[in-house]
Amino acid sequence: MASPGAPASGEDALIARYFRPLATDTGAFGLNDDAAVLKALGDDIVVTTDALVEGVHFLSDDPPHTIAQKALRVNLSDLAAKGAMPAGFVLSLALRRVDEAWLGAFAHGLGTDAIAFGCPLLGGDTVSTPGPLMISITAFGRIAPGKMVHRSGAKPGDHVVVSGTIGDAALGLDILKQGRVAMALSGDAASRDMLVSRYRVPQPRSALASAIRAHAHAAMDVSDGLAGDLAKLCMASAVSAAMDLKSVPLSKATSTAVAAGAVSIAEIISGGDDYEILCAIPPAAFDEFMRAAQAAAVAVSPIGTVIAGDSAPKWLNAEGKELPLTRTSYSHF
Amino acid sequence: MASPGAPASGEDALIARYFRPLATDTGAFGLNDDAAVLKALGDDIVVTTDALVEGVHFLSDDPPHTIAQKALRVNLSDLAAKGAMPAGFVLSLALRRVDEAWLGAFAHGLGTDAIAFGCPLLGGDTVSTPGPLMISITAFGRIAPGKMVHRSGAKPGDHVVVSGTIGDAALGLDILKQGRVAMALSGDAASRDMLVSRYRVPQPRSALASAIRAHAHAAMDVSDGLAGDLAKLCMASAVSAAMDLKSVPLSKATSTAVAAGAVSIAEIISGGDDYEILCAIPPAAFDEFMRAAQAAAVAVSPIGTVIAGDSAPKWLNAEGKELPLTRTSYSHF
Repeated sequence: MASPGAPASGEDALIARYFRPLATDTGAFGLNDDAAVLKALGDDIVVTTDALVEGVHFLSDDPPHTIAQKALRVNLSDLAAKGAMPAGFVLSLALRRVDEAWLGAFAHGLGTDAIAFGCPLLGGDTVSTPGPLMISITAFGRIAPGKMVHRSGAKPGDHVVVSGTIGDAALGLDILKQGRVAMALSGDAASRDMLVSRYRVPQPRSALASAIRAHAHAAMDVSDGLAGDLAKLCMASAVSAAMDLKSVPLSKATSTAVAAGAVSIAEIISGGDDYEILCAIPPAAFDEFMRAAQAAAVAVSPIGTVIAGDSAPKWLNAEGKELPLTRTSYSHF
Repeated sequence: MASPGAPASGEDALIARYFRPLATDTGAFGLNDDAAVLKALGDDIVVTTDALVEGVHFLSDDPPHTIAQKALRVNLSDLAAKGAMPAGFVLSLALRRVDEAWLGAFAHGLGTDAIAFGCPLLGGDTVSTPGPLMISITAFGRIAPGKMVHRSGAKPGDHVVVSGTIGDAALGLDILKQGRVAMALSGDAASRDMLVSRYRVPQPRSALASAIRAHAHAAMDVSDGLAGDLAKLCMASAVSAAMDLKSVPLSKATSTAVAAGAVSIAEIISGGDDYEILCAIPPAAFDEFMRAAQAAAVAVSPIGTVIAGDSAPKWLNAEGKELPLTRTSYSHF
């Protein structure tokens, strides 16, 4: 980059040093061009975009490699929920200043995940900002034509299934903010660490994508709270749902926090940042879906049933009584 | 959106009101899903991304519709320079607060251009930020497989050609900042308005895309300054160039400002935000390219010749003397 033919600007040098090594796809042209190419291979290209703002989606003192991982993984979570295979991503990065140690760790985290999930960097834009750090990633997946799994499509009788465990990330954030959960788990560093890690580094369920594609009537990722996201899926599908609160999968740490009264089950199902997959599986495909999930080593739990109607999904406790929800999801505005 | 099935969050209501009308492509699914689809049509998908930060790429009091237009157009400029036809875009928008008048004007500007350039909104993410407004757009173009025009590919003997006029946008910014150019043109409101408009609303040369695709050995858009961007094109092509300063196309307003000594020609060719197309056209295709540009109603000017070598492009004045350049382009860091 230090050729006399074109003195490298600071921006170009940054890109060369930290991001070029991540641009392993031939369609990235080594980040030496103005655009990238997703080659025509006969697939539909699934496109998703998510932005993370410092102080809103991550904390200023979160480790840079986990910030990078979260920025990419929230997009990979969307691709998985749509049944698509990752194909690459572009990165838009707004920085206050060049902190080489921070950037090195950020790029390392991003590169590790790009390899782990088969999703190479294709291009990007690095700009300066006087404000909070912001990362916007647009990720691409490939899927056979017309096969993307939608939010709509759920039918009465379908099983409502969710992957992983719910609520951990919201509790992790509470711990980082020294909230009630931090106090309830003050004697249990391992649980606190696990919950914080769930907030900082979501686990996209990419391994579940093919089972979703093969069997789900509808699917989406749970990012703004299980209850609110289920309501969105039901509305898009013009159905309702009867949900079984005691079936909602909780980690041991989260169960402990609930049992200690540090957090309510209503807060658990309306917290954000789970990045699990919520889907509607028809009864005829249920056994096969569960076997496919097991083969993919992704825990999945049936938590309710799709029913006809246009009312909000009902969350029923062990006594069959409906849980009132005042706030079902996170909203920015 | 006010269905009892899923109370609309503020964010969802915003998207429905302002952005859903722009999502005219079937692959956007009415912004009701987590992802969009670029349908398999046998084309390569060209991907480009550009971010704009308030106070860096536009001014806080720029009209919201021009901010929207600029955010989309800088991406359309990249697609045109690569020879691709616009196919759609995703928008990532970070807002400090919801200002309905601002958002309405922003969405209107974006929607008008989406229609004018055949580039519909496919999806996006709207988030809150405590900092400056930020807009990140990733745009997609279609092109026959393997036909994207690269920065590399320029050959000795090629004509260096640029579209439109150079320097206007940088002078427009100077005027908005009440600089020397504003004083030099204090008696000429029409020229000042034209230059400001060139800063706020670039004119992507989409009409030139097919001529670029058919004839150019290499092309890129001029966004960070003509001299610096030419140096990048030459470096990517492993060539140099002999440039004729007096052939650089200037608007009447810019010529006046240069003649008045308010700005130097060195500043003109290293200013940013031109969003014109710079390309290398082989001699055998030159006449046909010029005819195609005329048919597309895009003014283009030959400004130099590609030569062998790895030295920086030389900018020669009317006396054949080389112009020394201390700074060839804008860099964020």
